[in-house]
Amino acid sequence: MKESTGKLLHGGDYNPEQWLDHPKILEKDTERFKEAGINTVSLGIFSWAFLEPEEGVYRFDWMEKIINHLYENGISVILATPSGARPRWLAEKYPEVLRVNSRRERELFGRRHNHCLTSPVYREKVYQIDYQLSRRFGRHPAVRMWHISNEYGGECHCPLCQEAFRGWIRKRYQTTERLNSRWCTAFWSHVYTDFSQVESPSPLGEDSIQALDLDWKRFVTEQTVDFMRQEICAVRDGGSDLPVTTNLMYDFEGLDYARMAPELDVISWDNYPTWHKADDWTIALDACMQHDLMRSLKRQPFLLIESCPGATNWQSVSHLPAPGIHKAAGLMAVAHGSDSVMYFQLRQSRGSEEKFHGAVIDHYGGNDTRMFREVCDTGETLEKLGELAGTETRARAAVVYDTENKWAIKGSKGPRNKNMYYKETVFKSYRALREQGVDVDVINETQDLTPYRFVAAPMVYLFREGFERKLREYVEQGGTLFATYWSGVVDENDRCYLGGTPHGLMDVFGLRAEEIDGLYDGETNGIVPADGTTSGAAGGRYSCAHLCELVKPTTAETLMVYENHFYGGMPALLKNRYGKGTVYYLCADAEQRLYDSFYPEILREAGVRPLLEDMRIPKGLSVTSRENETYRYLILQNFSGEEQNVLCPAGEKILGGEGNRISPLETWVFRQKK
Amino acid sequence: MKESTGKLLHGGDYNPEQWLDHPKILEKDTERFKEAGINTVSLGIFSWAFLEPEEGVYRFDWMEKIINHLYENGISVILATPSGARPRWLAEKYPEVLRVNSRRERELFGRRHNHCLTSPVYREKVYQIDYQLSRRFGRHPAVRMWHISNEYGGECHCPLCQEAFRGWIRKRYQTTERLNSRWCTAFWSHVYTDFSQVESPSPLGEDSIQALDLDWKRFVTEQTVDFMRQEICAVRDGGSDLPVTTNLMYDFEGLDYARMAPELDVISWDNYPTWHKADDWTIALDACMQHDLMRSLKRQPFLLIESCPGATNWQSVSHLPAPGIHKAAGLMAVAHGSDSVMYFQLRQSRGSEEKFHGAVIDHYGGNDTRMFREVCDTGETLEKLGELAGTETRARAAVVYDTENKWAIKGSKGPRNKNMYYKETVFKSYRALREQGVDVDVINETQDLTPYRFVAAPMVYLFREGFERKLREYVEQGGTLFATYWSGVVDENDRCYLGGTPHGLMDVFGLRAEEIDGLYDGETNGIVPADGTTSGAAGGRYSCAHLCELVKPTTAETLMVYENHFYGGMPALLKNRYGKGTVYYLCADAEQRLYDSFYPEILREAGVRPLLEDMRIPKGLSVTSRENETYRYLILQNFSGEEQNVLCPAGEKILGGEGNRISPLETWVFRQKK
Amino acid sequence: MKESTGKLLHGGDYNPEQWLDHPKILEKDTERFKEAGINTVSLGIFSWAFLEPEEGVYRFDWMEKIINHLYENGISVILATPSGARPRWLAEKYPEVLRVNSRRERELFGRRHNHCLTSPVYREKVYQIDYQLSRRFGRHPAVRMWHISNEYGGECHCPLCQEAFRGWIRKRYQTTERLNSRWCTAFWSHVYTDFSQVESPSPLGEDSIQALDLDWKRFVTEQTVDFMRQEICAVRDGGSDLPVTTNLMYDFEGLDYARMAPELDVISWDNYPTWHKADDWTIALDACMQHDLMRSLKRQPFLLIESCPGATNWQSVSHLPAPGIHKAAGLMAVAHGSDSVMYFQLRQSRGSEEKFHGAVIDHYGGNDTRMFREVCDTGETLEKLGELAGTETRARAAVVYDTENKWAIKGSKGPRNKNMYYKETVFKSYRALREQGVDVDVINETQDLTPYRFVAAPMVYLFREGFERKLREYVEQGGTLFATYWSGVVDENDRCYLGGTPHGLMDVFGLRAEEIDGLYDGETNGIVPADGTTSGAAGGRYSCAHLCELVKPTTAETLMVYENHFYGGMPALLKNRYGKGTVYYLCADAEQRLYDSFYPEILREAGVRPLLEDMRIPKGLSVTSRENETYRYLILQNFSGEEQNVLCPAGEKILGGEGNRISPLETWVFRQKK
Repeated sequence: MKESTGKLLHGGDYNPEQWLDHPKILEKDTERFKEAGINTVSLGIFSWAFLEPEEGVYRFDWMEKIINHLYENGISVILATPSGARPRWLAEKYPEVLRVNSRRERELFGRRHNHCLTSPVYREKVYQIDYQLSRRFGRHPAVRMWHISNEYGGECHCPLCQEAFRGWIRKRYQTTERLNSRWCTAFWSHVYTDFSQVESPSPLGEDSIQALDLDWKRFVTEQTVDFMRQEICAVRDGGSDLPVTTNLMYDFEGLDYARMAPELDVISWDNYPTWHKADDWTIALDACMQHDLMRSLKRQPFLLIESCPGATNWQSVSHLPAPGIHKAAGLMAVAHGSDSVMYFQLRQSRGSEEKFHGAVIDHYGGNDTRMFREVCDTGETLEKLGELAGTETRARAAVVYDTENKWAIKGSKGPRNKNMYYKETVFKSYRALREQGVDVDVINETQDLTPYRFVAAPMVYLFREGFERKLREYVEQGGTLFATYWSGVVDENDRCYLGGTPHGLMDVFGLRAEEIDGLYDGETNGIVPADGTTSGAAGGRYSCAHLCELVKPTTAETLMVYENHFYGGMPALLKNRYGKGTVYYLCADAEQRLYDSFYPEILREAGVRPLLEDMRIPKGLSVTSRENETYRYLILQNFSGEEQNVLCPAGEKILGGEGNRISPLETWVFRQKK
Repeated sequence: MKESTGKLLHGGDYNPEQWLDHPKILEKDTERFKEAGINTVSLGIFSWAFLEPEEGVYRFDWMEKIINHLYENGISVILATPSGARPRWLAEKYPEVLRVNSRRERELFGRRHNHCLTSPVYREKVYQIDYQLSRRFGRHPAVRMWHISNEYGGECHCPLCQEAFRGWIRKRYQTTERLNSRWCTAFWSHVYTDFSQVESPSPLGEDSIQALDLDWKRFVTEQTVDFMRQEICAVRDGGSDLPVTTNLMYDFEGLDYARMAPELDVISWDNYPTWHKADDWTIALDACMQHDLMRSLKRQPFLLIESCPGATNWQSVSHLPAPGIHKAAGLMAVAHGSDSVMYFQLRQSRGSEEKFHGAVIDHYGGNDTRMFREVCDTGETLEKLGELAGTETRARAAVVYDTENKWAIKGSKGPRNKNMYYKETVFKSYRALREQGVDVDVINETQDLTPYRFVAAPMVYLFREGFERKLREYVEQGGTLFATYWSGVVDENDRCYLGGTPHGLMDVFGLRAEEIDGLYDGETNGIVPADGTTSGAAGGRYSCAHLCELVKPTTAETLMVYENHFYGGMPALLKNRYGKGTVYYLCADAEQRLYDSFYPEILREAGVRPLLEDMRIPKGLSVTSRENETYRYLILQNFSGEEQNVLCPAGEKILGGEGNRISPLETWVFRQKK
Repeated sequence: MKESTGKLLHGGDYNPEQWLDHPKILEKDTERFKEAGINTVSLGIFSWAFLEPEEGVYRFDWMEKIINHLYENGISVILATPSGARPRWLAEKYPEVLRVNSRRERELFGRRHNHCLTSPVYREKVYQIDYQLSRRFGRHPAVRMWHISNEYGGECHCPLCQEAFRGWIRKRYQTTERLNSRWCTAFWSHVYTDFSQVESPSPLGEDSIQALDLDWKRFVTEQTVDFMRQEICAVRDGGSDLPVTTNLMYDFEGLDYARMAPELDVISWDNYPTWHKADDWTIALDACMQHDLMRSLKRQPFLLIESCPGATNWQSVSHLPAPGIHKAAGLMAVAHGSDSVMYFQLRQSRGSEEKFHGAVIDHYGGNDTRMFREVCDTGETLEKLGELAGTETRARAAVVYDTENKWAIKGSKGPRNKNMYYKETVFKSYRALREQGVDVDVINETQDLTPYRFVAAPMVYLFREGFERKLREYVEQGGTLFATYWSGVVDENDRCYLGGTPHGLMDVFGLRAEEIDGLYDGETNGIVPADGTTSGAAGGRYSCAHLCELVKPTTAETLMVYENHFYGGMPALLKNRYGKGTVYYLCADAEQRLYDSFYPEILREAGVRPLLEDMRIPKGLSVTSRENETYRYLILQNFSGEEQNVLCPAGEKILGGEGNRISPLETWVFRQKK
């Protein structure tokens, strides 16, 4: 948020339109909000049918009443544009707003996120309602931010979208010759002789041109961004200059969020970890990687805008979070740069799809439920931590995790069509870094590398325009880079580089990748010392699986070799000095233990210092920092399941009990003068 | 059956239309029937194309010849209306009779059960053929009953059905305001502004309103009942007042059979257990629960109208039933209230879908096959047990297993979307009761509870109108009730009750349900003594899985508690006295052993006495009873796989050898003067 | 091939149209080809869009340049007709060429093999391009053979195909009465009253008449053959009389290749074994069975026309073949009768579906890759073995593996719908024969049995017209037959035989099949000595699974019996003398060990002598032979993974090192004067 208020937001989605005929319930809700320290409410996300019950007939009074009432009780509002779910009458009158799926079937009315992003009618109707809302509420003192639509996603294959896609392709490639060359359509004689022949990918048609798939995904992102831009425009035209956000989702592959970020003032996202599905520390780290990704999108504080008090209802099994998880998870967001802890939902709906989704106030309605008590406790703590609002995270290490690269890896046939384990591989680097107690940015290929002393860029199969140059310069100028197998294989059109890979970096890495072996699930190989070393990281024996690349070193030094199969003895981990920097190159999908063994050493060499320098961080203890001009805040959280001894760092402990022992799920915050 | 003939029916489906060009085979068949003690034959189920080869041209002579021939040989006929599969010409001429699936695709001709239930043309054509059949054969002395259509099921989403559905909804809710309120359409702005917007659920459209799904299923049932009613009407108009039945199916979820029962004179069903897939006793009990459910539909004797001599061919693997299974399975039906043992099929078809489905006469055609010998043996035994025809079962214990509740549990999202294990949970109570040697009714929420001293009502998530009142009165007046987690959560529209659950019964149960934990497959918790008890049922340690509810007791006494997780020590099994009665409340999906431990005690308290009071019933020994004004018949069957010692009860042993040892798969029947 | 050139072909698919804008790459390619001993190149398979960029506008110059250049460098050409993938403009202009799937959805342009086989427009366009190609290149001295289309397969359900299918059915059955009788349509009243009612099988319609499915598959084969015939005709009309082939696929079920064979001069096929997925010897044998099947189609040498240098990219996991596999696999084809070792592909494509499919020249492009070196090595060896070209394999043992039978087994419901294990069962006989060191033909039911002393005909469920006569005569005249459960059950219309099975052979086999038991996966039974024998094959104990048939012997002698279940003690393996011959009948799906134990004895009795008579062949050593008028060539290959001792046979060792020890993956060839 632009304006630092010295206050962390606490609140969530609220759907009073479901209770308009229960005024006492609405009254009671506000009391409960105050009791729970709720200071912010997201309104209107699914209210369109109530705001515009008939075409052109706007009914805003009920909402104004709600907003006024909240305001009088000291509660702010994040106001949504209602485009996430349109009214039934709109679909009925203008069938063109209904999506067409990839089999070219026009959908019926239902669900959410079901509109064509291209339809001029839909865009017009959305513009109108957004504009009217902005005019009416854009300057209301309670309203502090715009929540543009809801969880954008999905794609439409209708004729309007096909036409838009063709225009986009034409603009991108100018001539069919260029298109054919970039998309390698000579394969199977799929040559385009006219742009009018372009069709979106379909299980009933073209599904063999990976470059088409990639461009379709890019188009879907851009069409969505364009739609969102128009919603923002309507809000501005209505006279509001409040900051805008839209709620993003966990590891979402449908859109390239990197392209949405520039249009937004604030990044916000919805986090629903599956606590207790695996060990809680792993679940926590997995969520943290997303927090760090969201923060890195704009390198500024973000909002946790949805999370669940209790259990969600849409996961295959709804495990109850154990006591204390709720608060720890909320503070975890703050630890990683969030200026808020917000929930879906403040009051549980009585019926339909999400009636059993956790809420601050459940069907029972009392304030004596476990979850309500935990929300109150969280609210109290957030109150204490107000000074963290607006502080930033200044990471010196980054992990590259790129959506276009992910699309390309998943879309291409070979060397493993079952699973390439891209995310899992990125996570291994992330985890090793975090367990060393360093802040980590999670960035994409287009972002700047200069802030970092260490960059892990695993499996960067697709090189976005200029990425090899950026990596070269980064290393040349003294950066430390961790790279792996399956790097620099294709360009932005998923077209293979000729002449050897990793493309453009064979000298920087000191090697050439020759072959790659796919292993079936369950098969493994070993990674063993290259030269009989028996101590240190390079003296260990590590397992690897899934993918084993065979490389031919030129200048690189071989640290570890394969143990078995015909490539036993060939390099598995290498190190190369280039310019002022260093490159580590891992040839196989090694187990986490290899990362854990090598990273401390690599980070030392790279000059990345852990946040807690004086102690070995126990497994499960999260350490992060936020800072402003004056202070650095050090945040410790114990996800280990056991009490842990901590050598307290300098500074004032502004959260947490006395002594050196941190309890399970406890959070400590230290304020250090800079 | 209305008229008790003192004779158990033995016979099955017969399709002579497949052999009209093999008159010698038909001749031979009748001989074989007599050899096997077959006294009843179901005719005409799939004969439409032969009865009406062209529109309006009826050819009944071939059938009359068959019926006469059977009659002359002392064999009765159950005559079918042929609507289960229409002729190809009908579909060709009137495409509207073809079903439209939920993706809105009009099906082509094929399979069975493929007609629109709404189509006026189809209804007219069915009326005509039914009427003609009734006129011609309704008074034939061989014909004893009507078999209306065949295995009704399936649904159609065509425009005619949509229109009918809309009318049905309009009638039910009168105004869109009421519809919106009951269906909770405010969620995601799915508000209806006109009844014309109502569409059946579709994967391409509305699939998020669970109340719509429920009402659609109700409509499908009612439309099917209406269709069936019209078939019965045609038969009556044709001049026949013979009893009518239709063959129902195993645990069928497509229709709510409870709504069909009132229209039928006799309940009949098709039973195809998968012998040897699990241990035979479990397979037997599973089939028995269905027998008891079918009998309970009208609380009167029913017909086993289809079962398989040998193996079916449509299960994933066709295991041969071991020698003796055939007869034991037939008598098992009789033991549970069937007045018949009938087969699909008397003669195996030469080709098509079911050519390898077991039959009395197979492709080989000899009377020296194992299966033919076993059928003869069964026929002989049924002959001996004629006096059981028409006798009733008077159970004092019942288990509630409700189709609407099942729909709702499966349809709702959360707390376990993988599987809620509703049927499995009901079965645990059923099994524990049957292993104590008591007769059990399997009823739904709308049925009368007053005949029972003990009622198990597990997982009654959806309360049908007035069900909480019925349970309250039942307990108040001295009944013993066994209830569980996930009860009284929603109303008939799957709309959550506010203010605490189990809705309307928190005082009766002496507790309030607070939270429910979903466990992944493989995860378990323990249920342990509440207070250090070490003997008796409450002194044991039981495992639980899938779902663990956390309750807050008020007046209920805690018998057992959870062992682990954060709710270790919280109540897992409770007991509450209310009025003159008692309620047991189990909080988790406990293992069968817990039921087996507690039920003997609970039944003793409830005053439900086992049929064999003087002995501990060995595992695998089935004990049931049937009775009339004069006699009670006690039926023992040994499914244990081993010989068992039995302390013979009083009365005359009218079936079974001498002595106290019952062989595997043997059946004993005792006649006791009342 | 008609003309034996004394030269084995070495080469593969080449797609220069992908590199027309990289003339230097094309230049370089030819150098590499020569370096690698490549003497033959398949051209034009996917070149249509380049040969006819606009309708009627032919551009052949670029291809002529390529062909001339290859010719000048001593490289021959196999020229393809380009119908495997049509140009986009053709689909755009004539949508009727696009396939309609079984749900009756018209596909969009995309993929390969996507054309309607009936469309007159498509046939005309294909005729024209084929004709023009033949006119231009049919007499070019470089061009040696025609490669008609590519991997024919797939089916179309469009109105044109429906019409053609109806015509085909009408011709086959003449009257609907005959159709109804043969297809058993009386079942479920599916009677046809007019041929116009015939529709291809569909998930939306008729899917219960197995005879319809079978005829549809036959029609698809015949329509494909007819299409292919027309392509051959165009080539002939263009003035070329070169031999024609089309590339067939591994164990392909979409077409009955036996019906394509007569139209082709040479059989060729594409082999892609999944090396290292199981043990290499099993993988090798599995591929060998296909080689033998392909050779047996015309009982003459065939071509391995596609295989992969390195790993494919379309399998779920792409394992790298270990060093030496490539050459061994190529020579394995030659050992089984191939006159070539050819690859897909000579140069890797830069983009699209198969960009990571192995190639002789990869994206890197160097001649220092492992795979390029192995290709060179293979080329050198093929050069040495030129005299094998044109030599034949004269097997005395055959295994029946019939496509129509496979269709029928898979299509029918029961006794195991999960998997009947037909191919696996055939493979057990094949493996046992090959491990004894005998050449094996893999034939279908229509082929001549007189060349063989031993025939294994497992699971011949469907008897094609006259097959029972052929088997009877074969045994009568002294043949040894190995038969199994599930034989002689249905006729060509999947209509069950009446009066006992195996149909028409109960006297020849000396038994009648009575029942068949399906076992769940994981369930087993034992096969044990019939009479206490404790030595020899019949003295063992073998496991069986999946299917256990119960038979009643008449004249057959029981060698082994079942161990368990109610049929413990009943016959499991029988032997019957009939005429001058012998029949072995195995009742259950026994483990491989039973085959391995009995086959040596059976072969001895049958007079089939192993190729290496003086030694026990170690596991993993492949022994095959080829011969001409003068010489017999004995080929030994070591797939055991270990060095093996070999007692060298007579003759000159024309390939292989000195001494008696054959290394892993080594190939030895001996030339023996006849």
